[in-house]
Amino acid sequence: MVHFFGEAHLMTTHDASRTPLSPTPRTTLTRSKERGRTDRAELDAVLDAGLVCHLGVLLGGSPVVLPTVYGRAGDTLYLHGSTGAGNMRAAIGTDISVAVTHVDGLVYARSAMHFSMNFRSAVIRGRAKLVTDEAERDNALRVIVEHAAPGSWDRVRPPSRKEMAATMVLALDLTEASVKVRAGGPKDDADDIATGGVWAGVLPLHQVWGEPITSADLEPGVDVPADVTARVTPSPVTVG
Amino acid sequence: MVHFFGEAHLMTTHDASRTPLSPTPRTTLTRSKERGRTDRAELDAVLDAGLVCHLGVLLGGSPVVLPTVYGRAGDTLYLHGSTGAGNMRAAIGTDISVAVTHVDGLVYARSAMHFSMNFRSAVIRGRAKLVTDEAERDNALRVIVEHAAPGSWDRVRPPSRKEMAATMVLALDLTEASVKVRAGGPKDDADDIATGGVWAGVLPLHQVWGEPITSADLEPGVDVPADVTARVTPSPVTVG
Repeated sequence: MVHFFGEAHLMTTHDASRTPLSPTPRTTLTRSKERGRTDRAELDAVLDAGLVCHLGVLLGGSPVVLPTVYGRAGDTLYLHGSTGAGNMRAAIGTDISVAVTHVDGLVYARSAMHFSMNFRSAVIRGRAKLVTDEAERDNALRVIVEHAAPGSWDRVRPPSRKEMAATMVLALDLTEASVKVRAGGPKDDADDIATGGVWAGVLPLHQVWGEPITSADLEPGVDVPADVTARVTPSPVTVG
Repeated sequence: MVHFFGEAHLMTTHDASRTPLSPTPRTTLTRSKERGRTDRAELDAVLDAGLVCHLGVLLGGSPVVLPTVYGRAGDTLYLHGSTGAGNMRAAIGTDISVAVTHVDGLVYARSAMHFSMNFRSAVIRGRAKLVTDEAERDNALRVIVEHAAPGSWDRVRPPSRKEMAATMVLALDLTEASVKVRAGGPKDDADDIATGGVWAGVLPLHQVWGEPITSADLEPGVDVPADVTARVTPSPVTVG
């Protein structure tokens, strides 16, 4: 069980040239060093594959973790919320943390302590900046929508000025970030392998998109767009 | 986009009799009230369906969010880690937050601002207690393993005293918790519906377990256990 994530993500810094990351004073990879990744492309890949992140913000002196959507533009992560959202307002100008995690499978071992998960995860720390420039705000909304629903922005009604006025956009530099990846089978103790008799292996976990469900209030004659149908996982299963 | 999670989870308290939850001083559901749930069974359902949680802990004065596994026993959530894990040690005796989120689908709307996600999420706040009682520690490990891999505990080697000595167990009361659920189709503005011409609907997202992959170092003659095969989603798709 020690191998269920366990310890600190490697906190790293990168420069704008996207060279491999170098350690910073907050770099403290003390465990599972082989799972830390320093390639900036791996950070981007983990973030780009996610749908929701978990935002940690200090509220009344203690941390609160909230699920929210996000988007990435280069080295900036964008978050958004209603201007009436107290949790998001509390984040402005403060140090926050954002994590994105994918579970790829469950690792069955011969001993309880070596059960594990295959996963890809990114953890970011940094100061949340309120975005005030209108062009950047507009772009951030586009980035967030396109992150969740690629190809949809250009065919839907863009935000009105009134809607934008009610929307807060936060930016987080992807400067101090870490990536951890675990893949492969169980790593059992030699004694347990020698004893034998216990199945060991991996049960893979996948996320699949089902068939689109058209809204009941849609008028006839509007086809499901190609960007939606293209997303459906081939041969989807019936679940639930 | 306001509807992408948006605002605070409803923070509620329940008593041991598991009656419907009543508000506390920290109860501040200011937005999307219709998505707040107060039935304790819904909290249990969201937690029990999850594989990883996101733990928020104060580290050096600012929050860090870390993915980790967990288990639930009644009204207690258990977390664990290596005794050498600084992040987990930092949580002991402090206020933490834990979130579990399931994304059930992406809601395509006629306007960018009404894009949304269908989701179930739970957010818990409370003080992390270090568990020192050996019987409770043993049980917590069993609960965590059985949460991730139901039915596996009894057929694998249990933790040794040495392994347990290297393991830290934290308990979090499920006293102050909130649940939010969104389901169903898009809620577009009447004007956008009247204008028409834009597809609207839901793209469902499912998690499916693939076929088990036996470890390369397993001796011949050991079958995949029934608790593993029973987990495989019928007619799994080929992904990736």
